[in-house]
Amino acid sequence: MEPFEDEKILLAHGSGGKLGHDLVEKGFLPSFDNPLLAKLDDSAVFDAKGRLAFTTDSYVVTPIFFPGGDIGKLAVCGTVNDLSMSGATPLYLSVSFIIEEGFSLSDLSRIVTSIQQATDEAGAKVVTGDTKVVNRGSADGLFINTAGVGIIPDGVDISGSNARVGDKVILSGPIGEHGIAIMSEREGLKFASPVISDCAPLNKLVSEMLEVSSQIHCLRDPTRGGLATTLNEFANQSKVGILIHEDAIPVQDAVRAACEMLGFDPLYVANEGRLVAVVAPDDAERVAKRMSQNKYAAEATIIGEIMEEHPERVIMRTRLGASRIVDMLVGELLPRIC
Amino acid sequence: MEPFEDEKILLAHGSGGKLGHDLVEKGFLPSFDNPLLAKLDDSAVFDAKGRLAFTTDSYVVTPIFFPGGDIGKLAVCGTVNDLSMSGATPLYLSVSFIIEEGFSLSDLSRIVTSIQQATDEAGAKVVTGDTKVVNRGSADGLFINTAGVGIIPDGVDISGSNARVGDKVILSGPIGEHGIAIMSEREGLKFASPVISDCAPLNKLVSEMLEVSSQIHCLRDPTRGGLATTLNEFANQSKVGILIHEDAIPVQDAVRAACEMLGFDPLYVANEGRLVAVVAPDDAERVAKRMSQNKYAAEATIIGEIMEEHPERVIMRTRLGASRIVDMLVGELLPRIC
Repeated sequence: MEPFEDEKILLAHGSGGKLGHDLVEKGFLPSFDNPLLAKLDDSAVFDAKGRLAFTTDSYVVTPIFFPGGDIGKLAVCGTVNDLSMSGATPLYLSVSFIIEEGFSLSDLSRIVTSIQQATDEAGAKVVTGDTKVVNRGSADGLFINTAGVGIIPDGVDISGSNARVGDKVILSGPIGEHGIAIMSEREGLKFASPVISDCAPLNKLVSEMLEVSSQIHCLRDPTRGGLATTLNEFANQSKVGILIHEDAIPVQDAVRAACEMLGFDPLYVANEGRLVAVVAPDDAERVAKRMSQNKYAAEATIIGEIMEEHPERVIMRTRLGASRIVDMLVGELLPRIC
Repeated sequence: MEPFEDEKILLAHGSGGKLGHDLVEKGFLPSFDNPLLAKLDDSAVFDAKGRLAFTTDSYVVTPIFFPGGDIGKLAVCGTVNDLSMSGATPLYLSVSFIIEEGFSLSDLSRIVTSIQQATDEAGAKVVTGDTKVVNRGSADGLFINTAGVGIIPDGVDISGSNARVGDKVILSGPIGEHGIAIMSEREGLKFASPVISDCAPLNKLVSEMLEVSSQIHCLRDPTRGGLATTLNEFANQSKVGILIHEDAIPVQDAVRAACEMLGFDPLYVANEGRLVAVVAPDDAERVAKRMSQNKYAAEATIIGEIMEEHPERVIMRTRLGASRIVDMLVGELLPRIC
């Protein structure tokens, strides 16, 4: 998208009229160039055959630019990852902007560029969209909704309800980096080594995992609510217990330090480029090894297992050898994290 | 959805944790009950074969309750109609809420009920969703995004770029009612007979039209920017001229009076339950007649034709016999209309 220096979003950019059409034609079409979008009809039309995945998320993160990404990259990665966690290959995305009157067009241009880069990396296409503008004070800068459609390869059946006793739990990398990156930026906290958001599209990682195992039972990206909440969701959906080992869970020193300072537990801090997999025991080592060859999962590791005892509970064996129940997030750690 | 009397939305309802899960399980699941949604995975999964349509819109209408509907009904009808305008049968919808902290849970409950009623009427299902909560003052009550997936029957090929010289332009009913209903509610205007929004799902109307003609070339719902903007889009996409006849365009007396008072031209006022069709000349009368049997198109009528002259222009023959160019909406008539 061209930079539109110094210009501001006006209510008329959301009117459906001339200025809105100009924004689409000069601002969005060149960045998201593809024949489906270029038709400019009310819907994008494509052929499909097979099992499809369909998902949506809205993004309200503040600040909209943060170390390691921005709201545009996040909006693409979040939806690409939700599709990937069903085992789907992301194909088509919708992008819908809710913009506050007066928002900077050059910031919008940066965000559109990052949407473009993230969709290119994921191999997906933005095929339909919408722009609404609300009066000054009626929204906080910019919100983005993305929805996505992906196709699930034959034989893949991944669900939070598929965990079986004996399965291993694999975590793709250190936790809490997105949450702490946002918090640091918001609160002006400085660390010796700055914490960068882990925000990343995980579809290629998932494809690689599916290449080496047909026994991947559950996949989820531990975003809001963190690792603890995702594991509790698996335990509830699958009616099993989950045992995790504290000393197996990688946490960057800076994240640990920030959490101690702020009174957060890294288990509950949001991630935007990590995944948790529940895999049959015989395949777990192979899957973890393959994951560690992907740049977004270099520290992939087995952190626990599914057990018959304590159904619908997550139990953590602590560093000191004690066991404690890890509950779902209660309350709100950090609003507007994604 | 149960009423949750007197309760308010808290930031923690958007945390991804316990309160968010409770809202989904007690608030949304009972209303949108279906097996795809009930799995509660990151994506809804379904089988598909054929040509699919995919679309999205965000809704920021104010006030959120208005004569003839509310933001929930609007969010369903808008996306159902965008799918329908590609000739698609709507199948699956996503619903994503951005809610301001402190929003009334009983109002949310009313809106969820109206989402449910509108999806039921359209024969579609809400299969995936998201809830974000932003701090007080960071949004104006409630915004909703819906995305939708539909299937296009074999042989149907509808696009704004398909208009051919000689085709007739059919309008499904009187224009401007949604816009004037919103404006009246917002500004406290009273009319002898109150203006009710035309907001309605048009998928059944479109199916009926497709039953009687295989020569429906373009379909669009004239929402933001009104009839004038939709016709200009067709003229631009198809590189044709469009001639319309002022005296053929139905406008309710109360809408006309309101427009005169407010200085609006009904051609630019938003509709949410009307459609414009461009149909081969031999089929036009039959299509209009079939439309008039549907409760949402009782006043369907031919308002003009596609011509070779004046490509990319819309010309109106006025009541007085003069001709004038009808341009696309410039500026903003009424923000936050949908």
